[in-house]
Amino acid sequence: MTAAAPDVAMAKPLLAALAGERRRASPVWLMRQAGRYLPEYRAIRASAASFLDFCYTPTLAMEATLQPIRRFGFDAAILFSDILVIPDALGQRVSFEEGEGPRLKPIETAADLAGLAEAPDWSRLAPVFETAERVRAALTSDVALIGFCGAPWTVASYMIAGRGTPDQAPARLFAYRQPELFARLIDILVEASAAYLERQLRAGAEAVQIFDSWAGVLPPAEFERWSLAPIARIVAKLRAALPDAPIIAFPRGAATELGKFAAIDGLSGIGLDTAVEPRAAAAALPARLALQGNLDPLALLAGGRALDDGIDRTLAGFAGRAHIFNLGHGILPETPIAHVERLVARLRKTG
Amino acid sequence: MTAAAPDVAMAKPLLAALAGERRRASPVWLMRQAGRYLPEYRAIRASAASFLDFCYTPTLAMEATLQPIRRFGFDAAILFSDILVIPDALGQRVSFEEGEGPRLKPIETAADLAGLAEAPDWSRLAPVFETAERVRAALTSDVALIGFCGAPWTVASYMIAGRGTPDQAPARLFAYRQPELFARLIDILVEASAAYLERQLRAGAEAVQIFDSWAGVLPPAEFERWSLAPIARIVAKLRAALPDAPIIAFPRGAATELGKFAAIDGLSGIGLDTAVEPRAAAAALPARLALQGNLDPLALLAGGRALDDGIDRTLAGFAGRAHIFNLGHGILPETPIAHVERLVARLRKTG
Repeated sequence: MTAAAPDVAMAKPLLAALAGERRRASPVWLMRQAGRYLPEYRAIRASAASFLDFCYTPTLAMEATLQPIRRFGFDAAILFSDILVIPDALGQRVSFEEGEGPRLKPIETAADLAGLAEAPDWSRLAPVFETAERVRAALTSDVALIGFCGAPWTVASYMIAGRGTPDQAPARLFAYRQPELFARLIDILVEASAAYLERQLRAGAEAVQIFDSWAGVLPPAEFERWSLAPIARIVAKLRAALPDAPIIAFPRGAATELGKFAAIDGLSGIGLDTAVEPRAAAAALPARLALQGNLDPLALLAGGRALDDGIDRTLAGFAGRAHIFNLGHGILPETPIAHVERLVARLRKTG
Repeated sequence: MTAAAPDVAMAKPLLAALAGERRRASPVWLMRQAGRYLPEYRAIRASAASFLDFCYTPTLAMEATLQPIRRFGFDAAILFSDILVIPDALGQRVSFEEGEGPRLKPIETAADLAGLAEAPDWSRLAPVFETAERVRAALTSDVALIGFCGAPWTVASYMIAGRGTPDQAPARLFAYRQPELFARLIDILVEASAAYLERQLRAGAEAVQIFDSWAGVLPPAEFERWSLAPIARIVAKLRAALPDAPIIAFPRGAATELGKFAAIDGLSGIGLDTAVEPRAAAAALPARLALQGNLDPLALLAGGRALDDGIDRTLAGFAGRAHIFNLGHGILPETPIAHVERLVARLRKTG
C-alpha cells in the first residue's frame, strides 16, 4: 500500500475524519460526484463505445474522476468505475443500455454459478488499477482518493436478476429457495471483493467504501447473513492484508442495524442514508467511527431553503464528532451545478 | 358506529388483539388477501370495465372481500377497495391501466390544487359504505371487518406524481419546493380521510387501518411533518367521533420511527414491515399496542423451509404480547394457494 506517513495523511481532511479526528469543517465528497450532472462529463462520455469501456479506459476514467475535484474542490476523489466490474471480471459479461441500467445474463442454476471464474480476471481490471495510480499522482496533497466495490449482497442481487429491479426480489427469492447455492455465490464475491479492494489500495486508493445499496430490502435475519456477515469478512481480510487502510461501509436502508455495523472490527466509517436521523446516529454509534452523510439528494436538487435547512440540520446533528459530509444516496443527474456550489460554500462558510 | 358490546367484540380474535389481549394463537389476515393470487378473484375481475368500477360495485367488492375468508378462514376481512378512491372522490379522476398501476392527472400548481373539491363527493363513495354494510352482515361472528384508507403522505405522493414511482421523488421534491402548498394538500387529505374512515366504521367496519406505504422514503424531519403528524391528526379526529374504534397504522419503511407512532394517543395497533426485527419491536413498543406483521411476502411465495422458519421466527419474536399475524407487505400475485394454506395451518397448529 502506498499509504502516506501519519502526519502527511492527516493533512487530508478525509483521512483525518476516518482516523476519528474532529475538525471545524467537515470534509465533503458526494456519492456519484463524477457523472451525468456535469456538462464536462457528458462531453467526454461519448468518447467510449460503452459505459464499461469508459470505465476501463484510464485516460477517460481519470478525467471523469478529477472533473468534480477541479470544479468544486471536494476533499476526496472517488475512482470512476462501477460495482459490476466484478461480475464482469468473473466472466458474467455486463452491458449498460442507455437510460436502462445494467444488463447481465441472469444466474439461475448451479450450472450458471459453476460457469463463473473462481477469481476475477485481473487483466480485465488492470485499467482500474492504472487509473487509481494515475489519479493519485494527479491529486494535490490535501485530496484523498477513495476506491470502492459493491457489497456481495448488492452485487449478487444484480447477478441473479440480470438487472436492477424495484426491490431485488429475484435474488431474495433465490436466497430463500437455494440458500446453499446463494451462499456459494456470496463466498465468491467476498473473496473477489476483498482482493479487488486490496489491489485498489496498493495502486493508489487511500480509503475504500463498500456500497451495499440494496441492504435495506432484506429482513433482519437475511440481512445479518447476506449483508452484514459478508461485509465483515471483507473488512477482516482487508485488515489482515493492509492493517491501516480506512474502510467505510455504506449499508443503504439498514438504519435499524447500524449498531451491528459499528461492531465490525476494523471499520473506520459508516455511510448513512437519508432515513437516518443524524443526532440519533451520532448518539448511538461509537465515537471512534467517522459518520458520513446524509443530506437528501432531493434537497440538493430542490435548492433554496430546503437545501440550506438540510445542510444546517445535517451539520448540527453530527456536531461534536468525526463527520464526512455527503449525500444519503447518489447525486441526481438533474441536480443544478449552482446548488452543489452553494453546498460547498455553505460547508466552508464562504457562501 | 355499529360497535358490538365488549364481550361480543372479544369473540373476534382480531378485536381482542387490538384491545391488547394475548391469545395462544395470533389472529391472522394478510394485506391484499383479496386479489390476483386467487383464481376466484381473477374469475370475477373481468365483470367490471375498470378496476375502480369493480371497487364501486358492491356485489363485486363484497364477493372479492369474502373470497379469502371462505377459502382460508382468516380472522379478518378487509374491505376490497383502493387508497386512491379519495383523490377520485375529490375530483382528481383515477384510472388503472392493466399491469401498469394507477394513473392520475398530476397536481403541479396551486391552480391544480384549487381544482380539487373541499371534501369528497360522498355519493361517489356510497358503494364503498354499502359494501361495508353488506360484508358485515355476511360475516360470521368471529370474523372482524377492517376498513382502510391511505395515509395523507402516500395518497399525496400519487396525486402529485400522477402514478407510482420507485421512490415518490416528485412529491418529495414538491414538498421541498412548495411546502405551504403541499401542507394544504395534506390538510385536505387529513379531513377527507378521517371522515372517510368514520363513515366506513359507521357502515360496518369494526377496525380501520391507515396505510402509509411510502413513509419510508422520507428523511426524519420530513417524515415527522408529512407522515407522522397527519396520521396523528386523523387518529385524533376519529377518536373524537368514535372513541372505541380500533385504529391500526402501517407506516411502511419507518422502522426507526416506530416509537413515535406508539406515542400517538388512541392508536390500537402498529403494522410492521419486513425490515422490523420482531423481538426488538416487541421489547421497544408499549404493551398496550397490538403489533401486526411481519412475514416477508417473498418467504410466503418461496414456501418450504423459508416459509416455516419465517413463520416460527415471527411467532417467537412476538410471543408474550398482543399480536396479529400478517405479512410485512402485500401478498404477491404469484403466491401459490398451497403456501397460504400451509401458513394458516401452521399458525393454528393444525398442519
